[in-house]
Amino acid sequence: MKVIVLRWGHRPRDLRVTTHVALTARAFGASGFVLADVEDKSIKEKVEKVVADWGGPFTFEMGSSCKKTVAEWKKNGGIVVHLTMYGQKIDDKDVMSQISSSQRDIMIIVGSQKVPGEFFSEEFSDYNISIGAQPHSEVAALAIFLDRLFKGSELSKEFEQARIKVIPSQREKRLTRIES
Amino acid sequence: MKVIVLRWGHRPRDLRVTTHVALTARAFGASGFVLADVEDKSIKEKVEKVVADWGGPFTFEMGSSCKKTVAEWKKNGGIVVHLTMYGQKIDDKDVMSQISSSQRDIMIIVGSQKVPGEFFSEEFSDYNISIGAQPHSEVAALAIFLDRLFKGSELSKEFEQARIKVIPSQREKRLTRIES
Repeated sequence: MKVIVLRWGHRPRDLRVTTHVALTARAFGASGFVLADVEDKSIKEKVEKVVADWGGPFTFEMGSSCKKTVAEWKKNGGIVVHLTMYGQKIDDKDVMSQISSSQRDIMIIVGSQKVPGEFFSEEFSDYNISIGAQPHSEVAALAIFLDRLFKGSELSKEFEQARIKVIPSQREKRLTRIES
Repeated sequence: MKVIVLRWGHRPRDLRVTTHVALTARAFGASGFVLADVEDKSIKEKVEKVVADWGGPFTFEMGSSCKKTVAEWKKNGGIVVHLTMYGQKIDDKDVMSQISSSQRDIMIIVGSQKVPGEFFSEEFSDYNISIGAQPHSEVAALAIFLDRLFKGSELSKEFEQARIKVIPSQREKRLTRIES
């Protein structure tokens, strides 16, 4: 099961939040990130630096059309999950087990505050899911969604070709680093 | 059990990320937020507007000294938990049940990328905890920590004196709003 996170609605002032979305996608087990409809070189550089240092695989794409990317994803059999405070609750009956048991690839869409109404339609999103029906953060919503999807196993994911690794410690900052 | 989130290391460019930290604290069940050592009026306004519209109680403080706030918290019997990618794993044996079973108030510290080494010491933090030993986001780390602490119940928390509420829906944006 491949999981890709698509970010819609990035504006220059969102620079750091969008970077946090991308890094959270990687750290919580997604396979890649798409910054749709816009380009931002500094985010690309930041994410690619993290992948080079901390391992992958993790893909980064930008500039592609959101609509086209979603249409193609669905044509190829993937599911689209739109995270929104208005959606059905993530803890609703079987929604998460429905999504994960389908074994289909998942595109997770995280918007900014106002997304077009069509994102809610069946043609666009297979699921509109809320992580608590309160205003908070797309970073928090994404982390909780991926944590539920991977049932906590994402927190011990091993990354390939990592040059830096943390050695967990109660009182110190400990790293191993492979110098190239 | 009272839970307060303290943000350390806010810089002007962190405006939106710090706001996301504060809103995530509120939405995921914390009782209040402290922006330590600096002041930022626009964050205060944003958070207080959310509390006025979406309910509370949720306190917002800023400008107080991080060191003093932490020292006073500990003097009053509270626990301090520092979230850091270097800390012991959140899924380690009994760390979360130790923290919650103590029934003591909890101050959660979320820093920016580089925090002073003393944050890791016993004098400062009772626990240094990592949410996955990868670089990602303090917003994601906070959301997962609070979700583990409250065991998912935070997502259906009812807020007092809310003027706006979402009615969860599979396909629509539905709100109830009490006009004042």
